[in-house]
Amino acid sequence: MASTVLTGIKPTGTPHLGNFVGAIKPALALAGTASNALYFVADYHALNVIHDAQKLRSLVHEVAATWLALGLDPEKVIFYRQSDVPEIFELSWILSCFTAKGLMNRAHAYKAAVAKNMESRAGAPSASGAEDSDDLDAGINMGLYGYPVLMAADILLFKTNVVPVGKDQVQHIEIARDIAQRFNAIYGPTLVLPEARISAETAVIPGLDGRKMSKSYDNTIALFLPPEKLRKTIFKYKTDSSPPSEPKDPNTSPLFHLYREFATPEEAEALRGRYQSGIGWGEAKEAVFEVLNRALEEPRRRYADLMANPARIDALLSEGAQRARALAGPTLHEVRRAIGAR
Amino acid sequence: MASTVLTGIKPTGTPHLGNFVGAIKPALALAGTASNALYFVADYHALNVIHDAQKLRSLVHEVAATWLALGLDPEKVIFYRQSDVPEIFELSWILSCFTAKGLMNRAHAYKAAVAKNMESRAGAPSASGAEDSDDLDAGINMGLYGYPVLMAADILLFKTNVVPVGKDQVQHIEIARDIAQRFNAIYGPTLVLPEARISAETAVIPGLDGRKMSKSYDNTIALFLPPEKLRKTIFKYKTDSSPPSEPKDPNTSPLFHLYREFATPEEAEALRGRYQSGIGWGEAKEAVFEVLNRALEEPRRRYADLMANPARIDALLSEGAQRARALAGPTLHEVRRAIGAR
Repeated sequence: MASTVLTGIKPTGTPHLGNFVGAIKPALALAGTASNALYFVADYHALNVIHDAQKLRSLVHEVAATWLALGLDPEKVIFYRQSDVPEIFELSWILSCFTAKGLMNRAHAYKAAVAKNMESRAGAPSASGAEDSDDLDAGINMGLYGYPVLMAADILLFKTNVVPVGKDQVQHIEIARDIAQRFNAIYGPTLVLPEARISAETAVIPGLDGRKMSKSYDNTIALFLPPEKLRKTIFKYKTDSSPPSEPKDPNTSPLFHLYREFATPEEAEALRGRYQSGIGWGEAKEAVFEVLNRALEEPRRRYADLMANPARIDALLSEGAQRARALAGPTLHEVRRAIGAR
Repeated sequence: MASTVLTGIKPTGTPHLGNFVGAIKPALALAGTASNALYFVADYHALNVIHDAQKLRSLVHEVAATWLALGLDPEKVIFYRQSDVPEIFELSWILSCFTAKGLMNRAHAYKAAVAKNMESRAGAPSASGAEDSDDLDAGINMGLYGYPVLMAADILLFKTNVVPVGKDQVQHIEIARDIAQRFNAIYGPTLVLPEARISAETAVIPGLDGRKMSKSYDNTIALFLPPEKLRKTIFKYKTDSSPPSEPKDPNTSPLFHLYREFATPEEAEALRGRYQSGIGWGEAKEAVFEVLNRALEEPRRRYADLMANPARIDALLSEGAQRARALAGPTLHEVRRAIGAR
């Protein structure tokens, strides 16, 4: 099927094992089903919060190296850095002239920031009208407020059909559709309406405390730990005090879930048997380490290679940007003709 | 003195005689004093309101032809269309990440739009908080709301020192300074702080009813009327019923003010004498027509020539854009290095 799939990657820290299984793996799998797959590092979105050049640069390198190490093939997909495609920013301005301000008032990220301001001044006497909203906007910049417009430009510029997203991002796709519809209603069919693809069953893997692995629970396993550190971290998984000889339920064991994610079906069956006949937690942890280390050995090496040579990452991203711009140019041209800019 | 002066021209209709004397003439005079003079047709600002391709195109041609006809020399100054300089839009996004949303809440154009919404719902019960502000944002798009950021990009991209503005535009220059200061405070001196130049004595010419010539009073004289229409329009100036023989005060006569603006000092002295010894209003009007027509004859011809050949206007603007981009590139490069986009 001729379709374009686009995935934005926010450079906000090195992804952990949970991101890999829950987001990166499915996003990479989707690439195979599309005739055009685009992946971009959203550095100008990160600029909302990261006002430190060195930090922004390394985050971009880290996140790009991570995806490349985990199997993103820059020959098969288009992989670029957002800031290398100037067409995005021109389109973003154009789209802003067709975006109701009210849409932005209702955007999650902005509302969350306002809610935080409300909390922090709870009890204080509240004024009304313009002063009021000014107060609630404390610390919020126009990049945060307007970023759904930039995201619409990211998507619409490539006539994207499908955007794989988490549930919290569905609103942004709806905003992009709204803007495209409004534009098309005025100028005739020009922009393609994107669709959000929410993974039917997002793979969730358990963190060190048994809950969903998540940065906010501080229970994650970093992706590219050296083997000894990886083993030590896996040994931190919480287990009960049942003796090795006692049969154990694999279905309620976070360690078993993790194992199954990285083992062959045969290996998983074998471990299930050992659980049922009794296994020591130390052995189970060792087994998890073995399959995890096997799966991460090669990516870890590739990651280290890339991070030792950031110029190579930049070169790969630049090549990707050239290909992205070749797609972007015609769309922007059409849009410019439609509005009368040429 | 090495300095850069930048003038933005909003394409919102053919300028009239009042614009020429009050804004265009002084802006053109300023060019001679700067080492770099940039003039641009702000078509992407106009996109806030003009959602009609044909209209936007003709307004751009009209306003460009007007300035060229009135003496803008594209060899001596850099004359371009905003939408032809993509660096502006990338910088605009970057700057938005350093622009407090509160600054935009206080911008005149937005406040005026909100005030209009307030009026139109006067008496209706008012909610509070987010719903309230949403309500007040009805019909306001993000292009209107964010346009002070785009204007800051217009200015800061060229390290502009001086921006000649009307009093109502001073706030925009202050916003550009604010943004530049914030950026420089984080990344070190990168952007140049622009200064607003408000013409000390803005030449105001009287309209047909004696009040300041202004579109909103509907008392204007279009710049490029054919001679007979120009004469007819001038004969519409309101005068009293005093007989020709009665001495008249030139200082309180709109016609004399208009005459003086386009006559030589000797001619003005001569007409002053005729006023004092008694002049018929018809004669005074004829005299005004003569000097006005003399001044506008050549521009009118040039304007017609240009409008007959819009491709030539486009070519001139494209050449200007190339020169503008040659200046813009290094600034954007510096900014990108500062924030870590490269």
